[in-house]
Amino acid sequence: MNRIVVPAQAAGRLGDAWRHCVGTGRFNLALRQDYQESLALAQREIGFRYIRGHGLLSDDVGVFRPYDAAGHRGTRYAFTYVDQVVDAYLSLGVKPFLELGFMPEALASGTDTVFWWKGNITPPRDHSEWARLVRAVLRHLIDRYGLSEVRTWPVEVWNEPNLHVFWKDADQEAYFRLYEVTAKAVKEVDAELQVGGPVLSPGADDWWEPFAEFVTSRDVPVDFTSVHAYTSGPAEHVPFGVYQALRPPRNLLEQFARPKELLAGTPLADLPLHVSEFNTSYRPDNPIHDTAYNAAYLAPVLAEGGDVVDSFSYWTFSDVFEEVGIPTSFFHGGFGLLTHRQVRKPTYHLYAFMARMGQEILARGADHLVTRDDATGRVTVLAWQPVGGTDAPAEPDRHELSLSVPVPAAAGGRAFVVRYDVDTERGNAWHAWGEMGRPASPSSRQLDLLRDLAEPARTASSSPVTPAPDGAGTGRVDLDLVLGRHGVTLVEIDVVRDETPEWLDDSRVLGT
Amino acid sequence: MNRIVVPAQAAGRLGDAWRHCVGTGRFNLALRQDYQESLALAQREIGFRYIRGHGLLSDDVGVFRPYDAAGHRGTRYAFTYVDQVVDAYLSLGVKPFLELGFMPEALASGTDTVFWWKGNITPPRDHSEWARLVRAVLRHLIDRYGLSEVRTWPVEVWNEPNLHVFWKDADQEAYFRLYEVTAKAVKEVDAELQVGGPVLSPGADDWWEPFAEFVTSRDVPVDFTSVHAYTSGPAEHVPFGVYQALRPPRNLLEQFARPKELLAGTPLADLPLHVSEFNTSYRPDNPIHDTAYNAAYLAPVLAEGGDVVDSFSYWTFSDVFEEVGIPTSFFHGGFGLLTHRQVRKPTYHLYAFMARMGQEILARGADHLVTRDDATGRVTVLAWQPVGGTDAPAEPDRHELSLSVPVPAAAGGRAFVVRYDVDTERGNAWHAWGEMGRPASPSSRQLDLLRDLAEPARTASSSPVTPAPDGAGTGRVDLDLVLGRHGVTLVEIDVVRDETPEWLDDSRVLGT
Amino acid sequence: MNRIVVPAQAAGRLGDAWRHCVGTGRFNLALRQDYQESLALAQREIGFRYIRGHGLLSDDVGVFRPYDAAGHRGTRYAFTYVDQVVDAYLSLGVKPFLELGFMPEALASGTDTVFWWKGNITPPRDHSEWARLVRAVLRHLIDRYGLSEVRTWPVEVWNEPNLHVFWKDADQEAYFRLYEVTAKAVKEVDAELQVGGPVLSPGADDWWEPFAEFVTSRDVPVDFTSVHAYTSGPAEHVPFGVYQALRPPRNLLEQFARPKELLAGTPLADLPLHVSEFNTSYRPDNPIHDTAYNAAYLAPVLAEGGDVVDSFSYWTFSDVFEEVGIPTSFFHGGFGLLTHRQVRKPTYHLYAFMARMGQEILARGADHLVTRDDATGRVTVLAWQPVGGTDAPAEPDRHELSLSVPVPAAAGGRAFVVRYDVDTERGNAWHAWGEMGRPASPSSRQLDLLRDLAEPARTASSSPVTPAPDGAGTGRVDLDLVLGRHGVTLVEIDVVRDETPEWLDDSRVLGT
Amino acid sequence: MNRIVVPAQAAGRLGDAWRHCVGTGRFNLALRQDYQESLALAQREIGFRYIRGHGLLSDDVGVFRPYDAAGHRGTRYAFTYVDQVVDAYLSLGVKPFLELGFMPEALASGTDTVFWWKGNITPPRDHSEWARLVRAVLRHLIDRYGLSEVRTWPVEVWNEPNLHVFWKDADQEAYFRLYEVTAKAVKEVDAELQVGGPVLSPGADDWWEPFAEFVTSRDVPVDFTSVHAYTSGPAEHVPFGVYQALRPPRNLLEQFARPKELLAGTPLADLPLHVSEFNTSYRPDNPIHDTAYNAAYLAPVLAEGGDVVDSFSYWTFSDVFEEVGIPTSFFHGGFGLLTHRQVRKPTYHLYAFMARMGQEILARGADHLVTRDDATGRVTVLAWQPVGGTDAPAEPDRHELSLSVPVPAAAGGRAFVVRYDVDTERGNAWHAWGEMGRPASPSSRQLDLLRDLAEPARTASSSPVTPAPDGAGTGRVDLDLVLGRHGVTLVEIDVVRDETPEWLDDSRVLGT
Repeated sequence: MNRIVVPAQAAGRLGDAWRHCVGTGRFNLALRQDYQESLALAQREIGFRYIRGHGLLSDDVGVFRPYDAAGHRGTRYAFTYVDQVVDAYLSLGVKPFLELGFMPEALASGTDTVFWWKGNITPPRDHSEWARLVRAVLRHLIDRYGLSEVRTWPVEVWNEPNLHVFWKDADQEAYFRLYEVTAKAVKEVDAELQVGGPVLSPGADDWWEPFAEFVTSRDVPVDFTSVHAYTSGPAEHVPFGVYQALRPPRNLLEQFARPKELLAGTPLADLPLHVSEFNTSYRPDNPIHDTAYNAAYLAPVLAEGGDVVDSFSYWTFSDVFEEVGIPTSFFHGGFGLLTHRQVRKPTYHLYAFMARMGQEILARGADHLVTRDDATGRVTVLAWQPVGGTDAPAEPDRHELSLSVPVPAAAGGRAFVVRYDVDTERGNAWHAWGEMGRPASPSSRQLDLLRDLAEPARTASSSPVTPAPDGAGTGRVDLDLVLGRHGVTLVEIDVVRDETPEWLDDSRVLGT
Repeated sequence: MNRIVVPAQAAGRLGDAWRHCVGTGRFNLALRQDYQESLALAQREIGFRYIRGHGLLSDDVGVFRPYDAAGHRGTRYAFTYVDQVVDAYLSLGVKPFLELGFMPEALASGTDTVFWWKGNITPPRDHSEWARLVRAVLRHLIDRYGLSEVRTWPVEVWNEPNLHVFWKDADQEAYFRLYEVTAKAVKEVDAELQVGGPVLSPGADDWWEPFAEFVTSRDVPVDFTSVHAYTSGPAEHVPFGVYQALRPPRNLLEQFARPKELLAGTPLADLPLHVSEFNTSYRPDNPIHDTAYNAAYLAPVLAEGGDVVDSFSYWTFSDVFEEVGIPTSFFHGGFGLLTHRQVRKPTYHLYAFMARMGQEILARGADHLVTRDDATGRVTVLAWQPVGGTDAPAEPDRHELSLSVPVPAAAGGRAFVVRYDVDTERGNAWHAWGEMGRPASPSSRQLDLLRDLAEPARTASSSPVTPAPDGAGTGRVDLDLVLGRHGVTLVEIDVVRDETPEWLDDSRVLGT
Repeated sequence: MNRIVVPAQAAGRLGDAWRHCVGTGRFNLALRQDYQESLALAQREIGFRYIRGHGLLSDDVGVFRPYDAAGHRGTRYAFTYVDQVVDAYLSLGVKPFLELGFMPEALASGTDTVFWWKGNITPPRDHSEWARLVRAVLRHLIDRYGLSEVRTWPVEVWNEPNLHVFWKDADQEAYFRLYEVTAKAVKEVDAELQVGGPVLSPGADDWWEPFAEFVTSRDVPVDFTSVHAYTSGPAEHVPFGVYQALRPPRNLLEQFARPKELLAGTPLADLPLHVSEFNTSYRPDNPIHDTAYNAAYLAPVLAEGGDVVDSFSYWTFSDVFEEVGIPTSFFHGGFGLLTHRQVRKPTYHLYAFMARMGQEILARGADHLVTRDDATGRVTVLAWQPVGGTDAPAEPDRHELSLSVPVPAAAGGRAFVVRYDVDTERGNAWHAWGEMGRPASPSSRQLDLLRDLAEPARTASSSPVTPAPDGAGTGRVDLDLVLGRHGVTLVEIDVVRDETPEWLDDSRVLGT
Repeated sequence: MNRIVVPAQAAGRLGDAWRHCVGTGRFNLALRQDYQESLALAQREIGFRYIRGHGLLSDDVGVFRPYDAAGHRGTRYAFTYVDQVVDAYLSLGVKPFLELGFMPEALASGTDTVFWWKGNITPPRDHSEWARLVRAVLRHLIDRYGLSEVRTWPVEVWNEPNLHVFWKDADQEAYFRLYEVTAKAVKEVDAELQVGGPVLSPGADDWWEPFAEFVTSRDVPVDFTSVHAYTSGPAEHVPFGVYQALRPPRNLLEQFARPKELLAGTPLADLPLHVSEFNTSYRPDNPIHDTAYNAAYLAPVLAEGGDVVDSFSYWTFSDVFEEVGIPTSFFHGGFGLLTHRQVRKPTYHLYAFMARMGQEILARGADHLVTRDDATGRVTVLAWQPVGGTDAPAEPDRHELSLSVPVPAAAGGRAFVVRYDVDTERGNAWHAWGEMGRPASPSSRQLDLLRDLAEPARTASSSPVTPAPDGAGTGRVDLDLVLGRHGVTLVEIDVVRDETPEWLDDSRVLGT
């Protein structure tokens, strides 16, 4: 095996597109204890900037409240739950990425709904009433959180209007009308609020040009565009679950890049582009989400996605989620980085590993990303076994990789190398849960064990710092990594400052 | 004004019927952060033994889960949320008082629902399927929490079947059938599980005799009976609220006592009787619940209720509650002892005061309860201004009361007297919120102020211990209490052990 | 009584000199649980920027560690405890104001010590060894916390060298030598570190000119000057305590201003001047510190001190302090704003009140300070009963004050007025403890009561906003304040935005 | 290698002697934050019943306080710190094992001291004054914590009086006098308080008979006896550390057993015997304490010690300890189960593993202990590599062990096997710290890594339940364990209840 020589010169910056935003179950679920504990954990260890989910305007949040009693008639806009949720977000260091939807029943033109929790997906029966609602929401948020803060919260108009399931008849004209009314209502509140769309699902290439044409010709405000990306095929249903084929990871990056290609030449081409949802499978009941495979699959996507889009938002941070009903089993193929009750899944570790990377990219390949920290010069390696989706051959049981890594020290000393491993058996609560007999509702003891067994395997050792092969000033550390099946590894390398006193004699300690 | 001489001999024991149980919004709401924080607070300062609410079997808890896919067909019983909630309850030191209801949609015989959250109120379409569900729930609980623990959890069959709103057609025969099937299913799991009913609302005197007759004649198990009590008249609606007339507090105690009178002579007469719900108004949108009036009104009920029933359960501990929809305003007449986000209401203080009383009753009157602590001999006084409901004359601005209280010390020393006051202005967040302009969704600063202003006024002083008027050995402390309008006061009296050193000369300290 | 009309125009900025720094017991005590809990509380409610105490280099911190064993000889500089303490400070949001002292025994030229805990107060036996120590400490801090951070930490050389008790023979020449060696060692590490002195006690006016002359003539670095201020007379001892006469509060402000007067015309005159300790009494066993008198006395000092110095640091934030031995009684006249175990003293409330003031000064008088908040326009009033020290006549039982306060609203609406009161009986744990019989070591119950009774009395009401007397646009609120004896009051005034719905009819609620 | 067949019948009960008590640094150190956090952790994961250390009566706790000022003269007994510490202990679920000592300076007959912190080791200058002090302490504790509670707290008289370093001249007669005076003072307060001694160090066999003779002949109360045990040889000093030879672990158990042999035939023979201190080395600066070797060495001692004594108390739970001065390096050979700032050492894991064992002993051998849990039937295995002290040959790099373990299930199913490993590299923060370059005061990042790397390696798998070799009803699980060098392993075996739904097809999930 060849040793890859990682250059000491930076090849670029990693950026934060990978953690700019994360997805969440519907707005109302943010009131839950389990949800807030999970988000607090993710914020401590990953640190997302924004959070995006459906249902801000749905009836279980209770904003739009017409009344007619005792001779009094009108509409109240009530923010009891909105404020509880947004207060919680901000206190956890994450901002809302606002999605305006779905339709309050009392304002809806029809009764069609989506999901087990029945979000109404029909256009407003009165567009000026809708505009009033939009303005009321934004004015309230500005009143409570301040204009300069709310100006940093993107406002997305609806969700995946190109799908019948999310928008009555997938009616493009009706969506454009909604977009226009909404965008103008937003700007009426404050011209610097950021509004965007069209929040398309995969497979809607034919919507981009008409959208660009519509907003350009009518001078409708657009501050950013957004799209979703998933790589799974059709769902093959079993009770409480599905299986699906999966295209290769590269297809995700192609989906990320597609809107800019389609918008080339339009005024929208240079706007920020947010992948406001992505994942392997678009189903909340596909076991793939619980596996190390999912992490290995997404590793190159996290490493490269920032090259083509301004953000890409993992759908979702937690299994507290109810689109196909309340989960009947602890692991159930949910989108979450975390299960109910905060067991870390392999993909959570991928994100936590990314959060430990440096700002400079030194090397990036099919199975690795090497970065350096601006402040300390620490070099960090993320490595993974490449996996290729359903049609690729089964992966071998191990994956090897050799690197020569530059360190900020002259040759002659040592480097401290700490390594964290996740694969089909290690750092893998789903595996442990399988060995346990797949308890649907694990006991308190089982939860404790799952939390323990979800932790990545850890090792620490020191390695010699050797001269650079090219004779350059900086020293080198050789890493020979053997990853397990579907493995993802984090390696951190710090130069050792040896403080061992001269009188220490290990041979006189029995413990060595 | 006469000074009431409190005897040094105990007249009885106070007991815990007043805090044996507390009511809660529907089961699913227990997943909320706000709910759990509020319950934690109430448990620290009041310490309820049981908690009871609706909706354990409703679809938003997700227990009953038929499936039919890919050739697999059957029913799963899923406890994902049940376990999260019951785990939380037990960790907070409170046990579930199980109410079996409402009907899972997939098991219902009809589509009638109750409340904004649409609890299905129709009989099962298949009683043996219902019995299977009941057994599955209890077996799971026993499996997870242990048989000896679950045997201490009462199991109530349905809720207020005498009302059309809660039980299709208020069909007595159908309820009796449900009761029989359910009680037998419970006992099939374990003969020592405690099952009871008929959980009647006020005004159902005519149900008691038939129920006794039914269970006796058919040998249906009944381990306890239960009833509800409210003293408000019909609702006069305004938007998002009601006004109601109120009968005097004594009427609550009469309602408590009624079932035993009606059951006299039947085998049910000697069973434990639980008032599994009570309050002034039965509406979650009557401002009375937020007032000091509510506390003064309930003070004599808490002081005496334990004489006639085994428990009486305040409906409910928190404003996290959604029967008539999501509250549109911070104070909205909710049942809660606590508002959203843990502002203590006056009635909360009444309960917290009760939790500081001793075990022995020394005196009890129309405006006071005096107790002594078994362990320390501390004497505690709860006093209140008597209030009489809608038809009583308006209460004066102050209420006076003089007591001679026995203390466990000889005459000659001093007693430390600490006092906490709640009335229309003090310890009254509702008043403060009114002065603030009734903000629908208070800012973080306003919430902080409301929490501060919700605290009872506190004073501390010392009083001389004087000889007993009757020359008996124990000393006495004179208390002259002036309460504010709708006032409730707690007074704790400890004998001072003076540790002032002989050299202390207060006159040499500028601060005195 | 005349009503004082507070101008709507700001007269200046309040600044943060009053909370720039706070004093603490010796460095080692910062390892204590009680200490850290108290500091956390003070930081939440007051928010000091720096913390300063003695003993960084004393042997109970263990920095200077000569060794000689098994043929190995030298000195280790050990930072085990230094790092624990500074880590804790920074995590609580406060930075160290470094005082270099006292002398490690192994480096001392003599055996003289100060305090029960025996800080060695003699010059180094080897000045270059001392300089090495100083450099090692600063290099370590820079290594751990970063150069840019440590450059913001003032470095003071020794403490009160003009007193025999703190510096062997109060030898001025020896101090100047120490100062020179130290200041140069500091600058050798980094030229932008901030070093200063001479940290004089009250009554050392004759040291300023020689110090200025010494550093100027020899080009010794000085980045700031520092001095201490106390207004008590000689101690009259009783067991475990003292009584002392007290000069008027104005004397404190005169002491603050004195160094600048004495340094006029020297290059030191324009340097920042820190009062790195001040209080009424300089004794940690004078009951004055526990009283409301102390708070009323210091109120005008906090209101005005920032006019003459860059900071003035209350000595000290907590009773965790051992200069005259371990306290034998809960209240014992300790310096602390907080007692052991976090009972707030009246002077703590004064500081917490100050932390709620706005940035603009609208009015300042003998018994009041009125400010306005930049962001919200909220007007806040701090008022106090003026007290005059031992020779002043006894203060009356009440103090009255009338203000017309400008509010950011037109006339016609209402203002929400919230008020917190501390005086000889209210918000006064010391009073409550006296009534309790002065328990030396209060029981858990007594501690709970003391924490309750330490809280200021709180009231909330609303007042009409009236037209400005001068016809100017802004509205006015009239405040008629009656303070208790030795009272300190905080009043916050917010304009009410009335959200009362039109259908609300208070007369239909029994609770009003 | 032979497979050891573990019987299904219990051979005895494990008991709690191993965690009945734990040692601690001096009383005053319990005021520290780091100490209390460490104790809280140990209590959560191990759960000691009692805690014992020196210095309750030393001057840094401040109990004995003579005064003479302003004409007032006497002695105060001050409990400011005693109460803070004991309150903390009880709130953490651990009770004090009281050691009366050392001598308050003002009551001492001489100036000899022990330790860096200078505990005075001379007899009282006035034995009746000492008795008054003893009574005052116990009366205060009873007053604060209740008689029934304090009766459960053993009272030990002094510490290792047979050593010159702990008791002036190791004067046996003087100790017996102190013992008599103290024991009688204790019983004067309450006859059921438990008093004991003589708290001998290793190597004091000749004190037992005279002690028995003394107390018997003079009818001096003795409720228990106590002794200390260490197996290290003389200290070979280097700066800030020592090396020592070590006898085999069996020698520790022999020392435990010795007093009962020596007391055979005396009335003391049947009293409870507490090993109130034990460890490998008696030095707080021997690196052995930080190693996996120490854990492997003590494993058989923890497994068997309870057979011969009522308790044996590890000296000590935390490196917060200052007998030879303040540690100059993070790892420094301290006694602690935990380092400063809560890094778990290998011996900590041994204790935490023991805390997960069942109550019934199924098998016990030179390298293993197998237990079963009363409530659940879970079988737990503790295994270790036998190590033999300095004179034993170096241990090989691995240790193998095969067991056939009975499980509470019939053959045919599966068992879930979870395993935790500690050895020279795994679960070994000392190793990781060595690789880091032995930082004297680790940075915040290094502390985080050390905490991560201190965690035992974890694996989970399932194994088939096979028929018992003897055809008996209960099933069996085969364990083939390979331990690392100086390894200690915990294995927990639970019978699997398989809840895998029939439709689950792992082959359709990419992650498997």
